[in-house]
Amino acid sequence: MGRDWPVLSPRATIGILGGGQLGRMIALAAARYGLKTHVFAPDDTSPAFDVATRHTLAAYEDETALAAFAAAVDVVTYEFENVPAATAAFLEAHVPLRPGARALGTTQDRLVEKSFIAGLGIPTAPFEAVDELAGLDAALTVIGRPAVLKTRRFGYDGKGQALIGEATAPAVAWDAIGRAPAILEGFVPFSCEISVVAAHGLDGSFAAFDVCENTHRDHILDVTSVPARLSEATAGAAVAAAKRIADALDYVGVLAVELFVVTGKDGAAIMVNEIAPRVHNSGHWTIEGADTSQFEQHVRAICGWPLGSPRRLGAATMANLIGDDVKAWPTLIAEPGAHLHLYGKRHARPGRKMGHVTRIRPEHG
Amino acid sequence: MGRDWPVLSPRATIGILGGGQLGRMIALAAARYGLKTHVFAPDDTSPAFDVATRHTLAAYEDETALAAFAAAVDVVTYEFENVPAATAAFLEAHVPLRPGARALGTTQDRLVEKSFIAGLGIPTAPFEAVDELAGLDAALTVIGRPAVLKTRRFGYDGKGQALIGEATAPAVAWDAIGRAPAILEGFVPFSCEISVVAAHGLDGSFAAFDVCENTHRDHILDVTSVPARLSEATAGAAVAAAKRIADALDYVGVLAVELFVVTGKDGAAIMVNEIAPRVHNSGHWTIEGADTSQFEQHVRAICGWPLGSPRRLGAATMANLIGDDVKAWPTLIAEPGAHLHLYGKRHARPGRKMGHVTRIRPEHG
Repeated sequence: MGRDWPVLSPRATIGILGGGQLGRMIALAAARYGLKTHVFAPDDTSPAFDVATRHTLAAYEDETALAAFAAAVDVVTYEFENVPAATAAFLEAHVPLRPGARALGTTQDRLVEKSFIAGLGIPTAPFEAVDELAGLDAALTVIGRPAVLKTRRFGYDGKGQALIGEATAPAVAWDAIGRAPAILEGFVPFSCEISVVAAHGLDGSFAAFDVCENTHRDHILDVTSVPARLSEATAGAAVAAAKRIADALDYVGVLAVELFVVTGKDGAAIMVNEIAPRVHNSGHWTIEGADTSQFEQHVRAICGWPLGSPRRLGAATMANLIGDDVKAWPTLIAEPGAHLHLYGKRHARPGRKMGHVTRIRPEHG
Repeated sequence: MGRDWPVLSPRATIGILGGGQLGRMIALAAARYGLKTHVFAPDDTSPAFDVATRHTLAAYEDETALAAFAAAVDVVTYEFENVPAATAAFLEAHVPLRPGARALGTTQDRLVEKSFIAGLGIPTAPFEAVDELAGLDAALTVIGRPAVLKTRRFGYDGKGQALIGEATAPAVAWDAIGRAPAILEGFVPFSCEISVVAAHGLDGSFAAFDVCENTHRDHILDVTSVPARLSEATAGAAVAAAKRIADALDYVGVLAVELFVVTGKDGAAIMVNEIAPRVHNSGHWTIEGADTSQFEQHVRAICGWPLGSPRRLGAATMANLIGDDVKAWPTLIAEPGAHLHLYGKRHARPGRKMGHVTRIRPEHG
């Protein structure tokens, strides 16, 4: 239903499902345009509550709260892909949901997602569905080893994944992921991991930020560097894949496409690993590093406004502050030109994203 | 008392007196560092309420509300210089007030302010105190015509001012400003108006943004351009005056010093016109145009953190959107590279600052 709704005015209220740092940074970007925000989340320590005009503390299944929320906002967006389908459907009956339920439905399930990507003719790792232990044996015969067994739903930051090496008993991997419906993927010997953070406007326009090169630590994004060290052809192929995905999903908003770069004897090839229907950690550098930040761009798209310029302003590196990393804040705040962002979370639990720091170096034209 | 307090942690809460766009942008900058904010203002449509963690809707004279506010925050700052002296004194007894009561006391009264500036050996327009109509006649004899009669207190954006030309009857000017205690200033035939936006840290460090050149429309700031078209010597003299003022006030935070440039046969000279003990409209370009924005810089200073780099990133122009100017938002949001800011005010009354737009052009080194 998205495209039948008019362009929003800057007096509008943006509804945001999810109260983490992504929702917080969307709310901050919306405020810059004069928009009001209303964050809906079930956790009373949600960092996004601190900067939103209003908030609702309720479960995503609470239809009374959802109805009041829908009535109070002009558009609903979300900061995470695991919005329950019933929640999305309920909201979409009352108010524009951007990106729409189709983007959620496609990306919440790794099997649906991989099938969708492959169906567009975009390379992915080889994959097979696994519904039971016997199916895993069969899939391993097709895919070979090493391979990665992943739950179809609710995985993030490496959770719900098990690597199956030459000596791994299938039953051990099956137990490790909780015997949930899964997908077995061939292990990709990638030379690097990259992402395309891009926006698709309500009018079908498309704008990609420069391709990001990502390194992970314990399955969590550690550092993003832009520009990625890629040939123009490889970067172009990655952006083209993101555009094909956004077009096919009739997408409205910012999305991130994570890809592997595989270097073989014929040069570099790309494989799409996963789609995030939302702003993305690897796009945080755009706050200082691009004409328009990914958060502003997302707000523009969901309001039906023209997309902003994604032009990059320099060579950027963004480093996450995870868990106790945040204790370095006094050093980082004193570093000339370093842009420190903290998310207002009280407890620095291991693996928890507490903030990030971006450094921009001028480039010679 | 300011310097006896420890450096704040990013878990702290910043108290902000005043709920307009300056308070709003301070709150947004504080949020970027993970800080919580609490805005205290008497107007229930305050735009800063929309982005603050908490707000108190109360009169500045309400000591019960002030006591609760002081107990809930770790530092208090303000977005306007007309904070009542009793309010400042009450708060300062409970919590650090930054900038302190001395900055307020000096800048709230034009006669005290001009005497302070002149006492530092910094040039100002010639001035005389005027307490009654007879005194105005005497002052005109000293100052000559043209001259400008200004109320000592509560003037802003040209309010409380009357120009006295060759033919103006003193009584007419005296009536025009409401017969309030006043100051008569010699009219300065300036070639341009400039401002220095600078920060003074808790440790006495000083960092100035590049000098701003300002044009006004109906006594309200219209456009700021940076760099100002000044010789290095003139710009240096302006920054040196700002530093002397900040040092003498034992200032903590961002301040703006407005100056006239007068071009005579011996070259350009500066005269300080007024001091704003707060972030300033002419510093809005720093949001996109400098390594650190004036709002981030203010937050750093009042938290006792190191000042950020004030390095300019390009040639900047900032244009205010006043009253109906804001109707141009659909054009501005579509302009590539233009940075549109709207303040979330509902009604575009004439003379009301509704937003601003900043444009940054790369400069050749």
